[in-house]
Amino acid sequence: VVAARARRARRLVTLTSDLGAPYAAQVKAVLARSIDPARVVELTHDLPAHGVHEAAFVLRAMATGFPAGTVHLAIVDPGVGGRRAPLAIACADGSRLVGPDNGLLYPLAEALGRPRAFRLEPERVGGSPRVGTTFDGRDLFAPAAARLARGVDPARLGTPAAPTVYRVPKPSRTNDGGNGEVVHVDRFGNLITNLPTAWVPAGRRTVTVRVARRPLRLPWASSYESLGRGRLGALGSSFGTIEVAVGEGSAARRLRARVGARVTLGGRRPDVPLNR
Amino acid sequence: VVAARARRARRLVTLTSDLGAPYAAQVKAVLARSIDPARVVELTHDLPAHGVHEAAFVLRAMATGFPAGTVHLAIVDPGVGGRRAPLAIACADGSRLVGPDNGLLYPLAEALGRPRAFRLEPERVGGSPRVGTTFDGRDLFAPAAARLARGVDPARLGTPAAPTVYRVPKPSRTNDGGNGEVVHVDRFGNLITNLPTAWVPAGRRTVTVRVARRPLRLPWASSYESLGRGRLGALGSSFGTIEVAVGEGSAARRLRARVGARVTLGGRRPDVPLNR
Amino acid sequence: VVAARARRARRLVTLTSDLGAPYAAQVKAVLARSIDPARVVELTHDLPAHGVHEAAFVLRAMATGFPAGTVHLAIVDPGVGGRRAPLAIACADGSRLVGPDNGLLYPLAEALGRPRAFRLEPERVGGSPRVGTTFDGRDLFAPAAARLARGVDPARLGTPAAPTVYRVPKPSRTNDGGNGEVVHVDRFGNLITNLPTAWVPAGRRTVTVRVARRPLRLPWASSYESLGRGRLGALGSSFGTIEVAVGEGSAARRLRARVGARVTLGGRRPDVPLNR
Repeated sequence: VVAARARRARRLVTLTSDLGAPYAAQVKAVLARSIDPARVVELTHDLPAHGVHEAAFVLRAMATGFPAGTVHLAIVDPGVGGRRAPLAIACADGSRLVGPDNGLLYPLAEALGRPRAFRLEPERVGGSPRVGTTFDGRDLFAPAAARLARGVDPARLGTPAAPTVYRVPKPSRTNDGGNGEVVHVDRFGNLITNLPTAWVPAGRRTVTVRVARRPLRLPWASSYESLGRGRLGALGSSFGTIEVAVGEGSAARRLRARVGARVTLGGRRPDVPLNR
Repeated sequence: VVAARARRARRLVTLTSDLGAPYAAQVKAVLARSIDPARVVELTHDLPAHGVHEAAFVLRAMATGFPAGTVHLAIVDPGVGGRRAPLAIACADGSRLVGPDNGLLYPLAEALGRPRAFRLEPERVGGSPRVGTTFDGRDLFAPAAARLARGVDPARLGTPAAPTVYRVPKPSRTNDGGNGEVVHVDRFGNLITNLPTAWVPAGRRTVTVRVARRPLRLPWASSYESLGRGRLGALGSSFGTIEVAVGEGSAARRLRARVGARVTLGGRRPDVPLNR
Repeated sequence: VVAARARRARRLVTLTSDLGAPYAAQVKAVLARSIDPARVVELTHDLPAHGVHEAAFVLRAMATGFPAGTVHLAIVDPGVGGRRAPLAIACADGSRLVGPDNGLLYPLAEALGRPRAFRLEPERVGGSPRVGTTFDGRDLFAPAAARLARGVDPARLGTPAAPTVYRVPKPSRTNDGGNGEVVHVDRFGNLITNLPTAWVPAGRRTVTVRVARRPLRLPWASSYESLGRGRLGALGSSFGTIEVAVGEGSAARRLRARVGARVTLGGRRPDVPLNR
């Protein structure tokens, strides 16, 4: 019976949220009613609540690696129930994005190329009856994602729309480095900046940075292990940017820095010994 | 080789627990030995340990949305090793439930209709040899769920039993509202009550509630965002009931309320300004 | 398109890490580009960071239950970017292990039998272009695991190597008990020791143990529930070893014990009343 109802989805569906597992389960239940759960890949349900911009950065990093044509369903939606639009976006590589129009989807859409956005219309999407007004993830986005996974054209689910533009902050180049900021703090407390790793000259063994106004001279490390337990350092993150880390510890706690903290690379070498 | 051994399950299996991931992995290993892991949908492994009644509420909310015929395996089992019975339950829509007889399964079983319960007999279930006495989830429930997923009749795995009755507390109606309680605190600290959203008269812009003896007059909000950061308010939860929330904060912490806290809707308007 | 690119994997792939969900998503994206995500079973991404030896114990417990022939991809890799080798290991039952050569894989490899290890050579593995130097999990181990899942011989991906030997500490037997240690603290704060449950004589109702130098006489319990809320006790863990627990509480916090703490079973009965 189940097998008969779960018609074959042609696309993968990734699922990203700040919902926590129990609410996310309700989203998965809706998906399971119309597509095979084996096509759904959960990325995370523990993004920082209300942290739309950090989530946009993390979503882009997580989702760009998936095959062309994947449907990315993303729910970080503090404005649910308010006036923000619900969106579906078609991209150049055939991927589709579904979620709230609050900037969350924008960096990923740009990365996947030539985004065309549509404002979802609930009556066209169909889906489950609305229990409350607070859970579009379950009641609107999940049914929309399921239909897209089965090959429905996004244009059939809504009307063309101009999405809210949000771009991950770009760093600026200086003579001997650049000005940027922390764009993500990971679960280890590593500070992920938007300063490209390539801006560190080859062969450097230390770097001069300023994090949240604090001048630091740090070892430029090739591994976490080489930092040594409890020592501060900088290294090339897996996002292709500079990160500031503490060996087996939390740089966020040590430096009292969070997303948005200014980070300067280069500049006058601080009158401080090597900070480790 | 693997493909040959993993005979095709006809049903989906959902998996819910308070085990945390490493113990849950042992449950999944047992399932993977006899059904295709692609048929397994994990709902959460982070339910509050020992919170059987809250877990029963959350399980019902998560699982009722899945297709008819699904097998729901649920393990919140502080009495494991003691005298509580192991159960399989068959429901009207063809769904099957497997777990301990401590009330956890009861609200879901009632929601799915006409439950018939069976006390699992280990020698009929088969399954893996018992390593300890403390992990029926892996040693008994998982093998039982796998057999049910492959179409085995629950009556073949045990003997008819009368399950422990537990019902999510029902609120009582009053002239201008009702008396209820907090039945779930979600990861954001939102207080989910059992008071139906429909008991708030249409058009209201504020509601009078008493939470854990504290009288409050709260804005009746249509979205979390409209609460404003740090402000208290009430809104319709995705469970169809009233919830008390703080914009980008935790109502549980603010009001020092937890599961079981009394909540009154209506009554004499408190001599307090609008609490936000 | 996607279906065409995701050629069928013949083997299951389990995925274990300390990465947290967002980095793990990048690993899953790489896998999804060459094998069907439905073949991937995630075990946990929340192992203690930097706790390689505890992770080795937990990995072995989680993974040994999976079907013969499974590919186990494990990433707890504080030495990434340094000199530790990347490994693939073939075992007697046809299973394959992929991960860093830091001891993490060794106990599982021994349990699965007759391990033959190969040092992965990036140019033979292929895989995605390297963004940084800090994420072999995504850039090297995931492509290797995907190729193994599709039946590639491990010998084709690297050169024979002698892996770093790490064995979970073995307890020693004494006249009336044994000497061992805590090898894992689970999410409930239960202290999992390496002392076999079988070393407790049948029929005992109390046991004498010394945990982190503290002498204790504890009830030998058959269930967590029978401990009673807040009471200390000992029982047979689901790992086949003795565990020390507190009813609805954390033994780790109560006894200030962690992984590596010495545990003695038996010995002179302490001059203390029954500790509960």
